[in-house]
Amino acid sequence: MSDPRPIGVFDSGIGGLTVVKALRELLPNEDIFYLGDTARVPYGGKSATTVERYSLEMADMLLEENVKLVVTACNSASAVALGRLEQTLSVPVIGVIKPGAQAAVAATRSQHVGVIGTRATIKSGAYERELRALNPDINVTARACPLLVPLIEEGWLDDGLTDHVIARYLGPLTQEGVDTLVLGCTHYPLLADAIGRFLAGKAKLVDSAHTCAKAVEQLLDRHSLRASRGGAASLQVALTDAPDTFLAVARRALQLEIGEVQLREVLHRAPATAR
Amino acid sequence: MSDPRPIGVFDSGIGGLTVVKALRELLPNEDIFYLGDTARVPYGGKSATTVERYSLEMADMLLEENVKLVVTACNSASAVALGRLEQTLSVPVIGVIKPGAQAAVAATRSQHVGVIGTRATIKSGAYERELRALNPDINVTARACPLLVPLIEEGWLDDGLTDHVIARYLGPLTQEGVDTLVLGCTHYPLLADAIGRFLAGKAKLVDSAHTCAKAVEQLLDRHSLRASRGGAASLQVALTDAPDTFLAVARRALQLEIGEVQLREVLHRAPATAR
Repeated sequence: MSDPRPIGVFDSGIGGLTVVKALRELLPNEDIFYLGDTARVPYGGKSATTVERYSLEMADMLLEENVKLVVTACNSASAVALGRLEQTLSVPVIGVIKPGAQAAVAATRSQHVGVIGTRATIKSGAYERELRALNPDINVTARACPLLVPLIEEGWLDDGLTDHVIARYLGPLTQEGVDTLVLGCTHYPLLADAIGRFLAGKAKLVDSAHTCAKAVEQLLDRHSLRASRGGAASLQVALTDAPDTFLAVARRALQLEIGEVQLREVLHRAPATAR
Repeated sequence: MSDPRPIGVFDSGIGGLTVVKALRELLPNEDIFYLGDTARVPYGGKSATTVERYSLEMADMLLEENVKLVVTACNSASAVALGRLEQTLSVPVIGVIKPGAQAAVAATRSQHVGVIGTRATIKSGAYERELRALNPDINVTARACPLLVPLIEEGWLDDGLTDHVIARYLGPLTQEGVDTLVLGCTHYPLLADAIGRFLAGKAKLVDSAHTCAKAVEQLLDRHSLRASRGGAASLQVALTDAPDTFLAVARRALQLEIGEVQLREVLHRAPATAR
Protein backbone atom coordinates (compact mmCIF):
# COMPACT_ATOMS: atom_id res chain seq x y z
CA MET A 1 0.00 0.00 0.00
CA SER A 2 1.16 3.53 -0.67
CA ASP A 3 -0.19 7.00 -0.16
CA PRO A 4 0.68 9.81 -2.57
CA ARG A 5 -0.72 12.62 -0.38
CA PRO A 6 1.80 15.21 0.83
CA ILE A 7 3.37 15.37 4.27
CA GLY A 8 2.15 18.56 5.99
CA VAL A 9 4.69 20.57 7.97
CA PHE A 10 3.93 23.71 9.96
CA ASP A 11 5.99 26.14 11.96
CA SER A 12 5.54 29.59 13.43
CA GLY A 13 7.77 30.91 10.66
CA ILE A 14 10.61 29.94 8.35
CA GLY A 15 12.79 28.00 10.83
CA GLY A 16 10.89 24.75 10.27
CA LEU A 17 12.45 24.58 6.80
CA THR A 18 15.37 22.87 8.58
CA VAL A 19 12.94 19.97 9.17
CA VAL A 20 11.89 20.11 5.51
CA LYS A 21 15.56 19.89 4.52
CA ALA A 22 16.04 16.83 6.74
CA LEU A 23 12.83 15.24 5.34
CA ARG A 24 13.97 15.92 1.78
CA GLU A 25 17.26 14.16 2.38
CA LEU A 26 15.70 11.17 4.13
CA LEU A 27 12.48 10.82 2.08
CA PRO A 28 13.22 12.34 -1.33
CA ASN A 29 10.10 10.95 -3.02
CA GLU A 30 7.55 12.40 -0.55
CA ASP A 31 5.62 15.53 -1.50
CA ILE A 32 5.77 18.19 1.21
CA PHE A 33 3.43 21.08 1.95
CA TYR A 34 5.04 23.58 4.32
CA LEU A 35 3.02 26.26 6.10
CA GLY A 36 4.79 29.03 8.04
CA ASP A 37 2.71 31.32 10.26
CA THR A 38 4.86 34.35 9.52
CA ALA A 39 1.97 36.72 10.28
CA ARG A 40 2.18 35.71 13.95
CA VAL A 41 5.80 34.61 14.34
CA PRO A 42 7.31 33.96 16.85
CA TYR A 43 5.23 31.59 18.96
CA GLY A 44 8.08 31.52 21.50
CA GLY A 45 7.12 34.02 24.21
CA LYS A 46 3.37 33.67 23.69
CA SER A 47 1.12 31.89 26.19
CA ALA A 48 0.28 28.19 25.95
CA THR A 49 -3.37 28.99 25.22
CA THR A 50 -2.46 31.25 22.32
CA VAL A 51 0.10 28.82 20.85
CA GLU A 52 -2.45 25.98 21.09
CA ARG A 53 -5.08 27.99 19.21
CA TYR A 54 -2.62 29.05 16.50
CA SER A 55 -1.42 25.44 16.11
CA LEU A 56 -4.96 24.16 15.61
CA GLU A 57 -5.53 26.84 12.98
CA MET A 58 -2.33 25.87 11.13
CA ALA A 59 -3.22 22.16 11.28
CA ASP A 60 -6.71 22.89 9.88
CA MET A 61 -5.11 24.71 6.96
CA LEU A 62 -2.81 21.75 6.29
CA LEU A 63 -5.78 19.34 6.34
CA GLU A 64 -7.39 21.51 3.66
CA GLU A 65 -4.32 20.64 1.55
CA ASN A 66 -5.15 16.93 2.02
CA VAL A 67 -2.01 16.04 3.96
CA LYS A 68 -1.55 12.49 5.28
CA LEU A 69 0.48 13.48 8.34
CA VAL A 70 1.06 16.70 10.28
CA VAL A 71 4.61 17.54 11.40
CA THR A 72 4.71 20.22 14.09
CA ALA A 73 8.12 21.60 13.11
CA CYS A 74 8.04 24.18 15.87
CA ASN A 75 9.34 23.48 19.33
CA SER A 76 7.06 26.03 20.99
CA ALA A 77 4.01 24.38 19.42
CA SER A 78 5.28 20.84 20.06
CA ALA A 79 5.84 21.80 23.70
CA VAL A 80 2.32 22.96 24.45
CA ALA A 81 -0.06 21.94 21.64
CA LEU A 82 0.85 18.39 20.61
CA GLY A 83 -1.59 16.63 22.94
CA ARG A 84 -4.46 18.76 21.73
CA LEU A 85 -3.48 18.24 18.09
CA GLU A 86 -3.34 14.47 18.59
CA GLN A 87 -6.83 14.48 20.14
CA THR A 88 -8.28 16.71 17.45
CA LEU A 89 -6.81 15.76 14.08
CA SER A 90 -7.90 12.89 11.84
CA VAL A 91 -4.33 12.16 10.68
CA PRO A 92 -1.19 11.18 12.64
CA VAL A 93 0.69 14.07 14.26
CA ILE A 94 4.35 14.26 15.16
CA GLY A 95 6.34 16.91 17.00
CA VAL A 96 10.04 17.70 17.33
CA ILE A 97 10.46 17.18 21.07
CA LYS A 98 9.99 13.45 21.61
CA PRO A 99 12.37 12.38 18.81
CA GLY A 100 15.01 14.82 20.10
CA ALA A 101 14.64 13.55 23.66
CA GLN A 102 14.97 9.92 22.51
CA ALA A 103 18.14 10.70 20.56
CA ALA A 104 19.61 12.58 23.55
CA VAL A 105 18.94 9.72 25.97
CA ALA A 106 20.57 7.31 23.52
CA ALA A 107 23.61 9.59 23.12
CA THR A 108 24.48 10.71 26.65
CA ARG A 109 27.12 8.91 28.69
CA SER A 110 27.29 11.34 31.65
CA GLN A 111 23.45 11.21 31.96
CA HIS A 112 23.56 15.01 31.88
CA VAL A 113 21.73 16.51 28.90
CA GLY A 114 21.55 20.20 27.95
CA VAL A 115 18.60 21.72 26.11
CA ILE A 116 18.52 25.14 24.43
CA GLY A 117 15.48 26.81 22.87
CA THR A 118 13.22 29.83 22.93
CA ARG A 119 11.84 31.16 26.22
CA ALA A 120 8.47 29.45 25.65
CA THR A 121 9.96 26.03 24.89
CA ILE A 122 12.26 26.12 27.91
CA LYS A 123 9.59 27.54 30.23
CA SER A 124 7.20 24.78 29.21
CA GLY A 125 9.61 22.16 30.63
CA ALA A 126 8.55 19.85 27.81
CA TYR A 127 12.04 18.49 27.11
CA GLU A 128 12.69 17.75 30.80
CA ARG A 129 9.38 15.90 31.02
CA GLU A 130 10.09 13.88 27.89
CA LEU A 131 13.69 13.11 28.90
CA ARG A 132 12.68 12.07 32.45
CA ALA A 133 9.87 9.89 31.08
CA LEU A 134 12.53 8.01 29.12
CA ASN A 135 15.06 7.92 31.97
CA PRO A 136 13.98 9.16 35.42
CA ASP A 137 17.60 9.50 36.60
CA ILE A 138 18.67 11.85 33.83
CA ASN A 139 20.02 15.27 34.75
CA VAL A 140 18.75 18.10 32.51
CA THR A 141 20.04 21.66 32.26
CA ALA A 142 17.81 23.82 30.08
CA ARG A 143 18.56 27.35 28.91
CA ALA A 144 16.54 29.87 26.93
CA CYS A 145 18.65 31.57 24.21
CA PRO A 146 16.44 34.34 22.77
CA LEU A 147 19.31 36.01 20.89
CA LEU A 148 20.00 33.03 18.63
CA VAL A 149 16.93 33.32 16.42
CA PRO A 150 17.53 36.97 15.47
CA LEU A 151 21.24 36.27 14.90
CA ILE A 152 20.26 33.47 12.51
CA GLU A 153 17.71 35.70 10.80
CA GLU A 154 20.44 38.34 10.28
CA GLY A 155 22.37 35.62 8.47
CA TRP A 156 25.33 36.01 10.88
CA LEU A 157 25.89 32.27 10.89
CA ASP A 158 29.69 32.25 10.85
CA ASP A 159 30.50 35.38 12.78
CA GLY A 160 32.61 36.28 15.81
CA LEU A 161 29.71 38.11 17.41
CA THR A 162 27.51 35.02 17.16
CA ASP A 163 30.35 32.93 18.60
CA HIS A 164 30.41 35.30 21.63
CA VAL A 165 26.67 34.93 22.17
CA ILE A 166 26.93 31.14 21.88
CA ALA A 167 29.77 31.10 24.42
CA ARG A 168 27.71 33.25 26.79
CA TYR A 169 24.75 30.90 26.57
CA LEU A 170 26.55 27.53 26.43
CA GLY A 171 29.56 28.14 28.69
CA PRO A 172 27.63 27.40 31.90
CA LEU A 173 26.16 24.21 30.39
CA THR A 174 29.47 22.62 29.45
CA GLN A 175 30.96 23.71 32.81
CA GLU A 176 28.18 21.80 34.53
CA GLY A 177 29.14 18.58 32.74
CA VAL A 178 26.54 18.39 29.95
CA ASP A 179 27.81 15.86 27.36
CA THR A 180 24.82 16.03 24.97
CA LEU A 181 23.12 19.19 23.75
CA VAL A 182 19.64 19.21 22.19
CA LEU A 183 19.02 22.02 19.68
CA GLY A 184 15.46 22.64 20.88
CA CYS A 185 14.51 25.19 18.22
CA THR A 186 14.14 24.49 14.53
CA HIS A 187 16.19 27.60 13.66
CA TYR A 188 19.22 26.32 15.52
CA PRO A 189 20.47 23.68 13.02
CA LEU A 190 21.54 26.70 10.94
CA LEU A 191 24.07 27.39 13.75
CA ALA A 192 25.16 23.74 14.06
CA ASP A 193 28.66 24.57 12.75
CA ALA A 194 29.14 27.53 15.09
CA ILE A 195 27.80 25.61 18.09
CA GLY A 196 29.96 22.62 17.15
CA ARG A 197 33.02 24.92 17.12
CA PHE A 198 32.23 26.08 20.65
CA LEU A 199 31.57 22.58 21.97
CA ALA A 200 34.78 21.29 20.32
CA GLY A 201 33.92 17.67 21.10
CA LYS A 202 32.99 18.38 24.75
CA ALA A 203 29.36 17.53 24.02
CA LYS A 204 27.42 15.82 21.23
CA LEU A 205 24.82 17.80 19.29
CA VAL A 206 21.28 16.46 18.85
CA ASP A 207 19.75 18.16 15.82
CA SER A 208 15.99 18.02 16.41
CA ALA A 209 15.24 18.60 12.71
CA HIS A 210 17.14 15.46 11.78
CA THR A 211 15.72 13.31 14.59
CA CYS A 212 12.20 14.51 13.69
CA ALA A 213 12.68 13.40 10.06
CA LYS A 214 13.77 9.96 11.25
CA ALA A 215 10.62 9.72 13.36
CA VAL A 216 8.46 10.74 10.39
CA GLU A 217 10.01 7.92 8.36
CA GLN A 218 9.12 5.38 11.07
CA LEU A 219 5.59 6.74 11.40
CA LEU A 220 4.99 6.50 7.63
CA ASP A 221 6.15 2.90 7.67
CA ARG A 222 4.02 2.02 10.69
CA HIS A 223 0.87 3.45 9.06
CA SER A 224 1.75 2.28 5.51
CA LEU A 225 1.68 5.89 4.36
CA ARG A 226 4.78 6.02 2.16
CA ALA A 227 4.49 7.42 -1.33
CA SER A 228 5.51 4.93 -4.00
CA ARG A 229 6.39 7.36 -6.77
CA GLY A 230 9.85 7.43 -8.21
CA GLY A 231 11.71 10.60 -9.09
CA ALA A 232 11.68 13.99 -7.47
CA ALA A 233 8.72 15.01 -5.34
CA SER A 234 7.25 18.48 -4.97
CA LEU A 235 7.81 21.01 -2.22
CA GLN A 236 5.20 23.71 -1.75
CA VAL A 237 5.78 26.57 0.69
CA ALA A 238 2.95 28.78 1.95
CA LEU A 239 3.24 31.62 4.46
CA THR A 240 0.60 33.64 6.30
CA ASP A 241 2.48 36.87 5.62
CA ALA A 242 4.93 38.12 2.99
CA PRO A 243 8.41 36.56 3.37
CA ASP A 244 11.25 38.71 4.70
CA THR A 245 15.01 38.43 4.26
CA PHE A 246 15.23 35.33 6.45
CA LEU A 247 13.66 33.22 3.70
CA ALA A 248 16.64 34.09 1.51
CA VAL A 249 19.06 33.26 4.36
CA ALA A 250 17.40 29.87 4.94
CA ARG A 251 17.13 29.04 1.25
CA ARG A 252 20.82 29.76 0.76
CA ALA A 253 22.05 28.03 3.92
CA LEU A 254 19.85 24.96 3.43
CA GLN A 255 20.20 24.87 -0.36
CA LEU A 256 16.48 24.13 -0.69
CA GLU A 257 14.74 24.33 -4.04
CA ILE A 258 11.65 26.39 -3.19
CA GLY A 259 9.42 27.51 -6.02
CA GLU A 260 7.01 30.39 -5.78
CA VAL A 261 5.98 31.04 -2.17
CA GLN A 262 2.20 31.13 -1.69
CA LEU A 263 0.43 33.55 0.63
CA ARG A 264 -2.46 32.23 2.73
CA GLU A 265 -4.78 34.02 5.10
CA VAL A 266 -5.11 32.40 8.51
CA LEU A 267 -8.35 30.43 8.84
CA HIS A 268 -9.54 31.56 12.25
CA ARG A 269 -10.87 28.60 14.15
CA ALA A 270 -14.39 29.38 15.37
CA PRO A 271 -15.34 27.59 18.60
CA ALA A 272 -18.21 25.80 16.78
CA THR A 273 -15.79 23.96 14.47
CA ALA A 274 -13.82 22.46 17.39
CA ARG A 275 -13.96 18.70 17.15
CA MET B 1 -12.18 73.47 29.60
CA SER B 2 -10.65 70.23 30.75
CA ASP B 3 -11.06 66.56 29.97
CA PRO B 4 -10.49 63.91 32.63
CA ARG B 5 -10.56 60.94 30.21
CA PRO B 6 -7.35 58.90 29.97
CA ILE B 7 -4.75 59.12 27.24
CA GLY B 8 -4.73 55.81 25.35
CA VAL B 9 -1.37 54.37 24.36
CA PHE B 10 -0.84 51.20 22.36
CA ASP B 11 2.18 49.26 21.21
CA SER B 12 2.87 45.82 19.80
CA GLY B 13 4.30 44.87 23.18
CA ILE B 14 6.01 46.29 26.24
CA GLY B 15 8.47 48.69 24.53
CA GLY B 16 5.91 51.51 24.34
CA LEU B 17 6.22 51.88 28.10
CA THR B 18 9.18 54.16 27.30
CA VAL B 19 6.57 56.55 25.85
CA VAL B 20 4.44 56.12 28.98
CA LYS B 21 7.49 57.00 31.09
CA ALA B 22 8.07 60.16 29.03
CA LEU B 23 4.34 61.08 29.25
CA ARG B 24 4.36 60.54 33.02
CA GLU B 25 7.29 62.90 33.44
CA LEU B 26 5.85 65.59 31.18
CA LEU B 27 2.13 65.27 32.06
CA PRO B 28 1.99 63.83 35.57
CA ASN B 29 -1.70 64.56 36.12
CA GLU B 30 -2.99 62.72 33.03
CA ASP B 31 -4.51 59.24 33.43
CA ILE B 32 -3.00 56.73 31.00
CA PHE B 33 -4.38 53.48 29.66
CA TYR B 34 -1.65 51.37 28.04
CA LEU B 35 -2.43 48.43 25.80
CA GLY B 36 0.35 46.08 24.65
CA ASP B 37 -0.44 43.51 21.95
CA THR B 38 1.90 40.90 23.45
CA ALA B 39 -0.10 38.06 21.87
CA ARG B 40 1.08 39.21 18.44
CA VAL B 41 4.36 40.98 19.21
CA PRO B 42 6.45 41.96 17.29
CA TYR B 43 4.74 43.98 14.53
CA GLY B 44 8.20 44.66 13.06
CA GLY B 45 8.65 42.10 10.27
CA LYS B 46 4.92 41.72 9.54
CA SER B 47 3.33 43.10 6.39
CA ALA B 48 1.77 46.56 6.22
CA THR B 49 -1.72 45.07 5.76
CA THR B 50 -1.37 42.93 8.88
CA VAL B 51 0.07 45.76 10.99
CA GLU B 52 -2.75 48.07 9.85
CA ARG B 53 -5.41 45.54 10.86
CA TYR B 54 -3.80 44.90 14.25
CA SER B 55 -3.50 48.66 14.87
CA LEU B 56 -7.19 49.22 14.16
CA GLU B 57 -8.05 46.41 16.57
CA MET B 58 -5.87 47.92 19.31
CA ALA B 59 -7.34 51.40 18.75
CA ASP B 60 -10.89 49.98 18.98
CA MET B 61 -10.01 48.41 22.32
CA LEU B 62 -8.64 51.75 23.59
CA LEU B 63 -11.83 53.55 22.49
CA GLU B 64 -13.79 51.05 24.59
CA GLU B 65 -11.77 52.44 27.53
CA ASN B 66 -13.10 55.93 26.67
CA VAL B 67 -9.73 57.45 25.83
CA LYS B 68 -9.53 61.04 24.59
CA LEU B 69 -6.49 60.54 22.39
CA VAL B 70 -4.71 57.54 20.87
CA VAL B 71 -0.91 57.42 20.98
CA THR B 72 0.57 54.89 18.56
CA ALA B 73 3.68 54.15 20.63
CA CYS B 74 4.98 51.70 18.10
CA ASN B 75 7.16 52.72 15.20
CA SER B 76 6.06 49.82 12.99
CA ALA B 77 2.41 50.81 13.44
CA SER B 78 3.13 54.55 13.11
CA ALA B 79 5.00 53.82 9.88
CA VAL B 80 2.20 52.03 8.10
CA ALA B 81 -1.12 52.51 9.94
CA LEU B 82 -1.28 56.14 11.08
CA GLY B 83 -3.11 57.46 8.03
CA ARG B 84 -5.79 54.80 8.32
CA LEU B 85 -6.14 55.38 12.07
CA GLU B 86 -6.55 59.12 11.50
CA GLN B 87 -9.29 58.50 8.91
CA THR B 88 -11.09 55.96 11.07
CA LEU B 89 -10.98 57.06 14.70
CA SER B 90 -13.24 59.63 16.36
CA VAL B 91 -10.43 61.01 18.58
CA PRO B 92 -7.07 62.59 17.68
CA VAL B 93 -4.26 60.17 16.88
CA ILE B 94 -0.55 60.70 17.23
CA GLY B 95 2.39 58.53 16.21
CA VAL B 96 6.06 58.48 17.10
CA ILE B 97 7.58 59.16 13.70
CA LYS B 98 6.62 62.75 12.90
CA PRO B 99 7.72 64.17 16.28
CA GLY B 100 11.04 62.31 15.99
CA ALA B 101 11.60 63.58 12.46
CA GLN B 102 10.86 67.17 13.52
CA ALA B 103 13.33 66.95 16.40
CA ALA B 104 16.00 65.47 14.12
CA VAL B 105 15.60 68.22 11.51
CA ALA B 106 15.91 70.83 14.26
CA ALA B 107 19.03 69.15 15.70
CA THR B 108 21.17 68.30 12.67
CA ARG B 109 23.93 70.64 11.52
CA SER B 110 25.48 68.36 8.86
CA GLN B 111 22.01 67.77 7.33
CA HIS B 112 22.78 64.06 7.57
CA VAL B 113 20.43 62.15 9.87
CA GLY B 114 20.65 58.47 10.85
CA VAL B 115 17.59 56.38 11.70
CA ILE B 116 17.62 52.96 13.38
CA GLY B 117 14.63 50.71 13.94
CA THR B 118 13.10 47.30 13.26
CA ARG B 119 13.12 45.84 9.76
CA ALA B 120 9.50 46.87 9.17
CA THR B 121 10.00 50.47 10.24
CA ILE B 122 13.12 50.91 8.12
CA LYS B 123 11.65 49.06 5.13
CA SER B 124 8.58 51.32 5.23
CA GLY B 125 10.78 54.37 4.56
CA ALA B 126 8.46 56.38 6.82
CA TYR B 127 11.23 58.34 8.55
CA GLU B 128 12.86 59.27 5.22
CA ARG B 129 9.52 60.49 3.88
CA GLU B 130 8.80 62.51 7.00
CA LEU B 131 12.32 63.97 7.17
CA ARG B 132 12.32 64.90 3.47
CA ALA B 133 8.87 66.47 3.79
CA LEU B 134 10.36 68.76 6.41
CA ASN B 135 13.60 69.41 4.52
CA PRO B 136 13.93 68.08 0.95
CA ASP B 137 17.72 68.47 1.02
CA ILE B 138 18.28 66.29 4.05
CA ASN B 139 20.46 63.20 3.71
CA VAL B 140 19.11 60.13 5.55
CA THR B 141 20.88 56.86 6.32
CA ALA B 142 18.52 54.27 7.74
CA ARG B 143 19.52 50.92 9.22
CA ALA B 144 17.47 48.01 10.55
CA CYS B 145 18.87 46.67 13.84
CA PRO B 146 16.88 43.49 14.60
CA LEU B 147 19.27 42.34 17.37
CA LEU B 148 18.62 45.32 19.61
CA VAL B 149 15.11 44.39 20.75
CA PRO B 150 16.06 40.89 21.96
CA LEU B 151 19.20 42.28 23.66
CA ILE B 152 16.99 44.76 25.51
CA GLU B 153 14.50 42.04 26.39
CA GLU B 154 17.36 39.95 27.85
CA GLY B 155 18.08 42.94 30.10
CA TRP B 156 21.65 43.18 28.75
CA LEU B 157 21.47 46.97 28.80
CA ASP B 158 25.00 47.69 30.04
CA ASP B 159 26.96 44.85 28.59
CA GLY B 160 30.05 44.43 26.44
CA LEU B 161 28.21 42.14 24.05
CA THR B 162 25.51 44.74 23.48
CA ASP B 163 28.21 47.38 22.94
CA HIS B 164 29.68 45.16 20.18
CA VAL B 165 26.31 44.83 18.46
CA ILE B 166 25.75 48.59 18.69
CA ALA B 167 29.20 49.24 17.19
CA ARG B 168 28.43 46.80 14.35
CA TYR B 169 25.18 48.55 13.53
CA LEU B 170 26.17 52.18 14.12
CA GLY B 171 29.79 52.22 12.97
CA PRO B 172 28.89 52.66 9.28
CA LEU B 173 26.44 55.47 10.15
CA THR B 174 28.93 57.63 12.04
CA GLN B 175 31.57 56.94 9.36
CA GLU B 176 29.18 58.34 6.77
CA GLY B 177 28.92 61.62 8.70
CA VAL B 178 25.57 61.25 10.47
CA ASP B 179 25.45 63.90 13.24
CA THR B 180 21.94 63.10 14.56
CA LEU B 181 20.56 59.64 15.28
CA VAL B 182 16.85 58.94 15.65
CA LEU B 183 15.97 55.99 17.92
CA GLY B 184 13.17 54.75 15.67
CA CYS B 185 11.92 51.98 17.97
CA THR B 186 10.27 52.49 21.33
CA HIS B 187 12.46 49.81 22.92
CA TYR B 188 15.64 51.68 22.09
CA PRO B 189 15.51 54.44 24.74
CA LEU B 190 16.40 51.62 27.17
CA LEU B 191 19.78 51.50 25.35
CA ALA B 192 20.20 55.29 25.27
CA ASP B 193 23.20 55.10 27.66
CA ALA B 194 24.94 52.35 25.69
CA ILE B 195 24.30 54.07 22.36
CA GLY B 196 25.44 57.39 23.84
CA ARG B 197 28.72 55.72 24.92
CA PHE B 198 29.31 54.52 21.36
CA LEU B 199 28.45 57.87 19.78
CA ALA B 200 30.68 59.69 22.32
CA GLY B 201 29.47 63.10 21.19
CA LYS B 202 29.90 62.33 17.45
CA ALA B 203 26.12 62.46 16.97
CA LYS B 204 23.11 63.69 18.91
CA LEU B 205 20.44 61.20 19.99
CA VAL B 206 16.76 61.85 19.24
CA ASP B 207 14.68 59.81 21.67
CA SER B 208 11.37 59.25 19.91
CA ALA B 209 9.59 58.43 23.19
CA HIS B 210 10.46 61.85 24.57
CA THR B 211 9.65 63.76 21.37
CA CYS B 212 6.31 61.90 21.13
CA ALA B 213 5.38 62.97 24.68
CA LYS B 214 6.11 66.60 23.78
CA ALA B 215 3.83 66.29 20.76
CA VAL B 216 1.06 64.81 22.91
CA GLU B 217 1.31 67.82 25.22
CA GLN B 218 0.89 70.20 22.28
CA LEU B 219 -2.04 68.21 20.88
CA LEU B 220 -3.85 68.21 24.24
CA ASP B 221 -3.45 71.99 24.44
CA ARG B 222 -4.61 72.51 20.87
CA HIS B 223 -7.79 70.48 21.44
CA SER B 224 -8.34 71.71 25.05
CA LEU B 225 -8.10 68.14 26.24
CA ARG B 226 -5.88 68.52 29.32
CA ALA B 227 -7.03 67.00 32.58
CA SER B 228 -7.41 69.58 35.36
CA ARG B 229 -7.03 67.27 38.35
CA GLY B 230 -4.26 67.85 40.85
CA GLY B 231 -2.23 65.04 42.37
CA ALA B 232 -1.10 61.75 40.94
CA ALA B 233 -2.99 60.25 38.02
CA SER B 234 -3.56 56.57 37.33
CA LEU B 235 -1.68 54.27 35.00
CA GLN B 236 -3.44 51.12 33.81
CA VAL B 237 -1.57 48.49 31.80
CA ALA B 238 -3.37 45.82 29.79
CA LEU B 239 -1.76 43.16 27.61
CA THR B 240 -3.24 40.72 25.10
CA ASP B 241 -1.11 37.87 26.47
CA ALA B 242 0.56 37.04 29.77
CA PRO B 243 3.62 39.23 30.49
CA ASP B 244 7.10 37.70 30.20
CA THR B 245 10.38 38.68 31.81
CA PHE B 246 10.73 41.83 29.71
CA LEU B 247 7.98 43.52 31.72
CA ALA B 248 10.21 43.17 34.80
CA VAL B 249 13.21 44.52 32.84
CA ALA B 250 11.22 47.55 31.63
CA ARG B 251 9.62 48.21 35.01
CA ARG B 252 13.03 48.21 36.69
CA ALA B 253 14.86 50.20 34.02
CA LEU B 254 12.09 52.80 33.67
CA GLN B 255 11.17 52.86 37.37
CA LEU B 256 7.48 52.88 36.45
CA GLU B 257 4.81 52.24 39.08
CA ILE B 258 2.61 49.66 37.36
CA GLY B 259 -0.17 48.07 39.36
CA GLU B 260 -1.78 44.78 38.46
CA VAL B 261 -1.45 44.06 34.75
CA GLN B 262 -4.78 43.26 33.08
CA LEU B 263 -5.23 40.61 30.41
CA ARG B 264 -7.49 41.41 27.44
CA GLU B 265 -8.52 39.28 24.52
CA VAL B 266 -8.06 40.92 21.13
CA LEU B 267 -11.32 42.23 19.72
CA HIS B 268 -11.13 41.02 16.15
CA ARG B 269 -12.34 43.74 13.84
CA ALA B 270 -15.10 42.37 11.66
CA PRO B 271 -15.40 44.08 8.26
CA ALA B 272 -18.97 45.20 9.12
CA THR B 273 -17.75 47.40 12.01
CA ALA B 274 -15.34 49.35 9.79
CA ARG B 275 -16.26 52.98 9.85
